Amino acid sequence: MKRTLGVCYYPEHWPEETWEEDAARMAQAGLTWVRIGEFAWSRIEPEPGRLNWDWLDRAIATLGRHGLKVVLGTPTATPPRWMLERHPDMLALDAQGRPRGFGSRRHYCFSHRGYLHECRRIVRLLAQRYGQHPHVAAWQTDNEYGCHDTVVSYSDAARHAFRDWLRARYGTIAALNAAWGNVFWSMEYHDFDQIGLPNLTVTEPNPSHVLDFRRFSSDQVVAFNRAQAEIIRAFSDRPIAHNYMGRVTDFDHFRVGADLDIASWDSYPLGFLEDRLEVDADWKRRFARQGDPDFQAFHHDLYRAVGRGRWWIMEQQPGPVNWAPYNPAPLPGMVRLWTWEAFAHGAEAVCYFRWRQAPFAQEQMHAGLLRPDSAPAPALDEAARVAAELADAPRVHAAPAPVALIFDYDADWAWAIQPHARGASYFALVFDHYRALRRAGLSIDIVGPDCRDFSGRRLVVAPGLMHMPDDLKTALAESGAQVLIGPRSGARDASMRIPVPLPPAFPGLDVTVSRVESLAPGMEMPLQGGGQIRLYREEIEGGATPVLTLADGAPAAMRAGNVTYMAGWGDGAALDRLVTMLADQAGLTRLPLPEGVRIRDTGAERFWFNYNPYAVDTPVGRLDPAGVLRQSF
Amino acid sequence: MKRTLGVCYYPEHWPEETWEEDAARMAQAGLTWVRIGEFAWSRIEPEPGRLNWDWLDRAIATLGRHGLKVVLGTPTATPPRWMLERHPDMLALDAQGRPRGFGSRRHYCFSHRGYLHECRRIVRLLAQRYGQHPHVAAWQTDNEYGCHDTVVSYSDAARHAFRDWLRARYGTIAALNAAWGNVFWSMEYHDFDQIGLPNLTVTEPNPSHVLDFRRFSSDQVVAFNRAQAEIIRAFSDRPIAHNYMGRVTDFDHFRVGADLDIASWDSYPLGFLEDRLEVDADWKRRFARQGDPDFQAFHHDLYRAVGRGRWWIMEQQPGPVNWAPYNPAPLPGMVRLWTWEAFAHGAEAVCYFRWRQAPFAQEQMHAGLLRPDSAPAPALDEAARVAAELADAPRVHAAPAPVALIFDYDADWAWAIQPHARGASYFALVFDHYRALRRAGLSIDIVGPDCRDFSGRRLVVAPGLMHMPDDLKTALAESGAQVLIGPRSGARDASMRIPVPLPPAFPGLDVTVSRVESLAPGMEMPLQGGGQIRLYREEIEGGATPVLTLADGAPAAMRAGNVTYMAGWGDGAALDRLVTMLADQAGLTRLPLPEGVRIRDTGAERFWFNYNPYAVDTPVGRLDPAGVLRQSF
Amino acid sequence: MKRTLGVCYYPEHWPEETWEEDAARMAQAGLTWVRIGEFAWSRIEPEPGRLNWDWLDRAIATLGRHGLKVVLGTPTATPPRWMLERHPDMLALDAQGRPRGFGSRRHYCFSHRGYLHECRRIVRLLAQRYGQHPHVAAWQTDNEYGCHDTVVSYSDAARHAFRDWLRARYGTIAALNAAWGNVFWSMEYHDFDQIGLPNLTVTEPNPSHVLDFRRFSSDQVVAFNRAQAEIIRAFSDRPIAHNYMGRVTDFDHFRVGADLDIASWDSYPLGFLEDRLEVDADWKRRFARQGDPDFQAFHHDLYRAVGRGRWWIMEQQPGPVNWAPYNPAPLPGMVRLWTWEAFAHGAEAVCYFRWRQAPFAQEQMHAGLLRPDSAPAPALDEAARVAAELADAPRVHAAPAPVALIFDYDADWAWAIQPHARGASYFALVFDHYRALRRAGLSIDIVGPDCRDFSGRRLVVAPGLMHMPDDLKTALAESGAQVLIGPRSGARDASMRIPVPLPPAFPGLDVTVSRVESLAPGMEMPLQGGGQIRLYREEIEGGATPVLTLADGAPAAMRAGNVTYMAGWGDGAALDRLVTMLADQAGLTRLPLPEGVRIRDTGAERFWFNYNPYAVDTPVGRLDPAGVLRQSF
Ligand SMILES: [Zn+2]
Ligand SMILES: [Zn+2]
Ligand SMILES: [Zn+2]
Repeated sequence: MKRTLGVCYYPEHWPEETWEEDAARMAQAGLTWVRIGEFAWSRIEPEPGRLNWDWLDRAIATLGRHGLKVVLGTPTATPPRWMLERHPDMLALDAQGRPRGFGSRRHYCFSHRGYLHECRRIVRLLAQRYGQHPHVAAWQTDNEYGCHDTVVSYSDAARHAFRDWLRARYGTIAALNAAWGNVFWSMEYHDFDQIGLPNLTVTEPNPSHVLDFRRFSSDQVVAFNRAQAEIIRAFSDRPIAHNYMGRVTDFDHFRVGADLDIASWDSYPLGFLEDRLEVDADWKRRFARQGDPDFQAFHHDLYRAVGRGRWWIMEQQPGPVNWAPYNPAPLPGMVRLWTWEAFAHGAEAVCYFRWRQAPFAQEQMHAGLLRPDSAPAPALDEAARVAAELADAPRVHAAPAPVALIFDYDADWAWAIQPHARGASYFALVFDHYRALRRAGLSIDIVGPDCRDFSGRRLVVAPGLMHMPDDLKTALAESGAQVLIGPRSGARDASMRIPVPLPPAFPGLDVTVSRVESLAPGMEMPLQGGGQIRLYREEIEGGATPVLTLADGAPAAMRAGNVTYMAGWGDGAALDRLVTMLADQAGLTRLPLPEGVRIRDTGAERFWFNYNPYAVDTPVGRLDPAGVLRQSF
Repeated sequence: MKRTLGVCYYPEHWPEETWEEDAARMAQAGLTWVRIGEFAWSRIEPEPGRLNWDWLDRAIATLGRHGLKVVLGTPTATPPRWMLERHPDMLALDAQGRPRGFGSRRHYCFSHRGYLHECRRIVRLLAQRYGQHPHVAAWQTDNEYGCHDTVVSYSDAARHAFRDWLRARYGTIAALNAAWGNVFWSMEYHDFDQIGLPNLTVTEPNPSHVLDFRRFSSDQVVAFNRAQAEIIRAFSDRPIAHNYMGRVTDFDHFRVGADLDIASWDSYPLGFLEDRLEVDADWKRRFARQGDPDFQAFHHDLYRAVGRGRWWIMEQQPGPVNWAPYNPAPLPGMVRLWTWEAFAHGAEAVCYFRWRQAPFAQEQMHAGLLRPDSAPAPALDEAARVAAELADAPRVHAAPAPVALIFDYDADWAWAIQPHARGASYFALVFDHYRALRRAGLSIDIVGPDCRDFSGRRLVVAPGLMHMPDDLKTALAESGAQVLIGPRSGARDASMRIPVPLPPAFPGLDVTVSRVESLAPGMEMPLQGGGQIRLYREEIEGGATPVLTLADGAPAAMRAGNVTYMAGWGDGAALDRLVTMLADQAGLTRLPLPEGVRIRDTGAERFWFNYNPYAVDTPVGRLDPAGVLRQSF
Repeated sequence: MKRTLGVCYYPEHWPEETWEEDAARMAQAGLTWVRIGEFAWSRIEPEPGRLNWDWLDRAIATLGRHGLKVVLGTPTATPPRWMLERHPDMLALDAQGRPRGFGSRRHYCFSHRGYLHECRRIVRLLAQRYGQHPHVAAWQTDNEYGCHDTVVSYSDAARHAFRDWLRARYGTIAALNAAWGNVFWSMEYHDFDQIGLPNLTVTEPNPSHVLDFRRFSSDQVVAFNRAQAEIIRAFSDRPIAHNYMGRVTDFDHFRVGADLDIASWDSYPLGFLEDRLEVDADWKRRFARQGDPDFQAFHHDLYRAVGRGRWWIMEQQPGPVNWAPYNPAPLPGMVRLWTWEAFAHGAEAVCYFRWRQAPFAQEQMHAGLLRPDSAPAPALDEAARVAAELADAPRVHAAPAPVALIFDYDADWAWAIQPHARGASYFALVFDHYRALRRAGLSIDIVGPDCRDFSGRRLVVAPGLMHMPDDLKTALAESGAQVLIGPRSGARDASMRIPVPLPPAFPGLDVTVSRVESLAPGMEMPLQGGGQIRLYREEIEGGATPVLTLADGAPAAMRAGNVTYMAGWGDGAALDRLVTMLADQAGLTRLPLPEGVRIRDTGAERFWFNYNPYAVDTPVGRLDPAGVLRQSF
């Protein structure tokens, strides 16, 4: 497939007389796509019912004249001020019970019927007008669902919708009381209308209550997005995308993605390293200008799964951002590296955010490809260089990876509700495994929890899946692949209760978790032969074969057939040992990589990336700082 | 006295067909007591006025058939959901003004008259039915008053009750204005109905205002508990207990205890070490699987005083808990050690929490004596071992200790309101003294602030008593014992004003605190001869004899007759020096102990306990990790 | 000018029979001034409309009889409880939307018309009665505007007043939308009445919105103060002061000061070091008993500018305070040093806070010149010593300094709204420059942002001025002085937008900031020749001459003509290099000083101050710990 570049553009921010030159310069830089419109509701509909399409028609026409293809966003992430007068109760409430007001963006509750109706209306108008427009080649719904912690709302609208959701799930209040174990602490309900939202309780609420609320909240996002996708599809045959964020796990992206054609995400390697990774200050400093060497790749692989193979970067960081605790400039070359890494993981397109730095409002300190004075910012050259390289270079071919990693949003909520150890998170656990696989030079496909077909996989890694349906266990047991599970695999039933027989209750694996504990920093338990268990640890018993053993002789991992159970959170060295053991068993070729160097295999070649600020010698030659090498097989 | 064991049990959580076997296994393990009922209101009264006693009758009968004695709890800590419909305003308000809602436990305000009326009603029904039941051998009121920060409420009900309380205390508003010094900042009131609760003020409220509010809040707990005790007594001659918590100081336990027959407490050594002790990370790591070597003993001694000699452990940690930041498993043997230590301090009974780990709801990760699948958890064996040892062993005889330590809840509130140094707390100060006494091998009786009879004491330690009534000063001065007071002793009058003449104004002791300062970490002031003053320091003057002196020659402690005044917060070495000096003066035999080893003397023997994970040689033989030795006198 | 001493006194706190002796002792100690009345509203007007002047008449008479001059405070910082019944909505709301209630002080919203009316009324009554009183020699309005974060209020009153303020500023809503860039995220308004306050938004609000709200909030303080000043002036020819705080930057002190005759401030060197300086723990420990060596001087110089030359210390710390995290006692001699340092910077009077330590209410642990028992506290002697020295010593003559430093409150708000780096603040940046100038032995005049006359200055330092009007740029360019600007100079226009051409756009200086980044700790960028850029850094380009260069060769500072642009936040060594370079260029004589030693030049002599707890040898002799030397020119 031919890979393409693009950019995010806000014609409404600039004098109309500049549009023509902007479009010309975009085309000249080798860009293909221009995403527009996603925050422009106040310009499309300045007053309720008064539509103003002219400027948007002209903007699209201008871009089209220069051969650019438009991705048109629905503007529902930024309802105009007048919307609040029509629907004063449309705001989400935070966990403290405070309305989250007008004055920035995403100021709506997913459960509010009135606002949903308004969204349907504006999307229909957009889709009717532009659904077959020759220059509108794709759609984006809303913008960054869940950003700014906006999935969960404690509004009245959410409360009433949650009760309906529970009625549909449980049928009778007795069934709900039993599923949640409400006999505990006399929490039993007699009617669904007695059920509140799980905030502002005296001490922690029932974890089953919270998990259902988290599932409900995710479902509200799915329904909100589906409503838009169905309307667009009625008027347009262009593909529909949404732009997800990095490490937003509050809704099930697989379910939202099922209603869309393309997954895309907004990749800010430097900002994300600063504000959402559990790494120490040394690591942050070391990669401050390059980004974490695995974070982008992880999301590439995740969203490739969410998009069922089709995925983009809709917003690529081009320079310093405005929103992290610290906002350094990228090392020269990193914008190019990030772009190529996306392509190596199968991205169809990479769009930079944004064309020109805005001189006003919240993101005025967010770099663009152009400076506010329209002079080129450093990233413009790097983008143009990639465009030139794309023109010359062989096409990137996708290929399934022999390693699959399961990622399950529901498990992330369950861990968040019940971490047991301060700071324990499912995302971090899975990401630690992903890093270890990458350090071994392996390429990975991420799959969702509904995956049952593991044919072609030689290794399946599935840590921390707190709920594992029986058919998933069976599919893994029978997959023929080496399978790594634990800790906490199958530790809860579908309603967040501990199942009996005790976990993992995995077919063919005689292992039982007899006791669970968590470990403060400094309490790490060393393994014989290297590595440690940290943070979360299980005592296990049974007839399976110990393959990792603690210093005191207790088993830390046990194995039977193709399945290995890891009874705790391994540190880097422990996970490297597990990966080595299982990859060798699976007949996979490992290639241990120096820190900061990563590879990714496509169908026809191996890509090498250097996240270090210094050159590294590799078997295929010298890899410059921020360097990219393509090695044909 | 014959010491006994017990367990907490929730028959309503389990299928009725399992009760029989549960009871049989309890009896077989050597248990005597089973506490039940304290969270079962929604099963006893599923709808307002519809009582359902059958299941409870059968549960008690089953237990009784196996020779077990029931401790029956009143269920008032967990009002059912329907209660909120009858009394929507019964919820406490937090300091931010937010209702603390339904969905966990302790969701009530102690000042709400309607809820108090409901509690009286259900307690009367329970007491009528079971007051003379042959298998009901003791009562528990409510559960863990004050847990989850529930003593203080900022509700309307509290505000009105507080005004009445102030009226009763002060009589006239002029008297209140004078006592509080309300002329300061024009805070004068003209009517009690103008007085609000001391939250959400612009800057800190008047400390006299806060102290009276804290006293009022404590009194509301006393009244709430007394209402239950009076009703139970009208129908039952069985002893009544309440189960207090570790380091909950928000109400005066002595006053609650005065209405009860037995004090009991819920001892979670590992959880408490993690979440409520001012110790550094090294200490927490060192004792992570054993618990702090002094924290349990302190509470044993404290609650023995609260129970006027009669006390239990109502909930003893048997394995990992679910609620601390980190939740490790105990070192093998510690459950036995904790149990024996309680007996050595005079406990009549130790009950484990809980029989079987619940597979659902908030405490599903809290260990029991059984696993969720009914297999024995490690603690069951340790409990059974203690039961066997109890059968064989000589009885434990109580004996008054030659050392008394005064603990005063009112002083804790005063320090909390006015710590002067970040992190300074009365509890921590007293506990530091308790530790030093224990390091010297001394056994201690804790006494309340109303104690005036110090006969038989050779040493009385009373640090930080911010308000000291004159008759207490006199009793101490005339006690014949060595007396240690300071810092801050007598620093405030009954209304939190600085008295003139200046503190301590202690009879026969020519010492005056002329100035007070606090010291940031790093500003510690060394003493000549070893040790330091940290955090809180007083300049003193007068004719008494200096016995500790700062490097600059200023006195740090002064002495006259039998009374020593310590003018600051001594570190460990300073307190060891003070204890050595005073114990020697008092003719007490000290026995300096290695870290982690502790002793406790009863009437006939000395108990040795090893909180270390390694063996220690003692004069009476080798003390295993988690080991217990009994040395006859 | 003859310098004088004074004290703050609360006759209403003490029995009237003690007033006479208090006054006699004040006079005997050499005090001239007594400030009274500023918290006495509840005694002046115990009930609405019932005025009680007698006690105040007598108190003033008593003081006057002893030759003391009264500074009379308006009591508007502490409205009595009855005021709340008349104006229940007069309270400020905090950023969380909670009313900030009665029970301490400053419980009013500056925008509330009803309360403003009450203030006018009481001030008029006071001014009428005492405006020409022979013993009332000066006035103070209110008390410590802005203390306890009280400038900004999110009340309804504030919202409505803010809309009016915006109407006046922008005229049309279209102009506001354009100025704020509200097209971004569809934030456009159709009417001023749609505009809310910028709290509780989903993510950060528009910085232009916030900056205007901060300006409005400041203007409300100006108007509130002006209302009082105008009334007082109508009845009295005595000078009017206000007592500002240390590092309160929430309102524009220059604008408040423009309506007053004298600036004064409340100087608490030990408390301020503990609670409001970005210095590390070592520094805090080193100067814990002396105070930061530059913080007082900075405020002396700042408030001298605010007072247009006339300034006092209205409250001088005399011993431990009650409100900092830790509250140590001063090193002996420091009270004297602080007093003399104020005089060296031109203070007309220094008043100690307070006469006698109050035994009650919030400040009972705040030292006075007397202890609560009326015995002298250590500071009384030091004050009396200064009084004696003043009698003998040559007069202190003011002289303009050759170095001017610009301080702009508006810039502080802009940085606070958009720090870009965690912890970056304008105050800290300016203070770092001030320290470097002081380390070089230079004396400094601070000037406001409206200053256009730089005649007589040889060096003007103006870092971080985010908005620089064109005429300020011109005045600086043409001043003849060496001028230091940057970072962020002229980085925003008057409405917080990035200007084009890009900053600094300074006449005659060919420097353009092409990109901006921020640096986490550990990312400091070394300069060739010593020093580093930290926290905030700009890439610059242009034809000016590099004078500081980063290790990679990029320019860190550039210079053309008399103007130097610093492209980042220099650490101490970098700023020392800049100061050296510019002072030498300006022909200023530097005198590098040892740590903790500071000098200040007046018209006729040089003062030396030793903030160290050890003696230091200087060219003019030995400087004792806490020592002061006067060196005649
Ligand atoms: Zn609506
Ligand atoms: Zn009620
Ligand atoms: Zn009013």
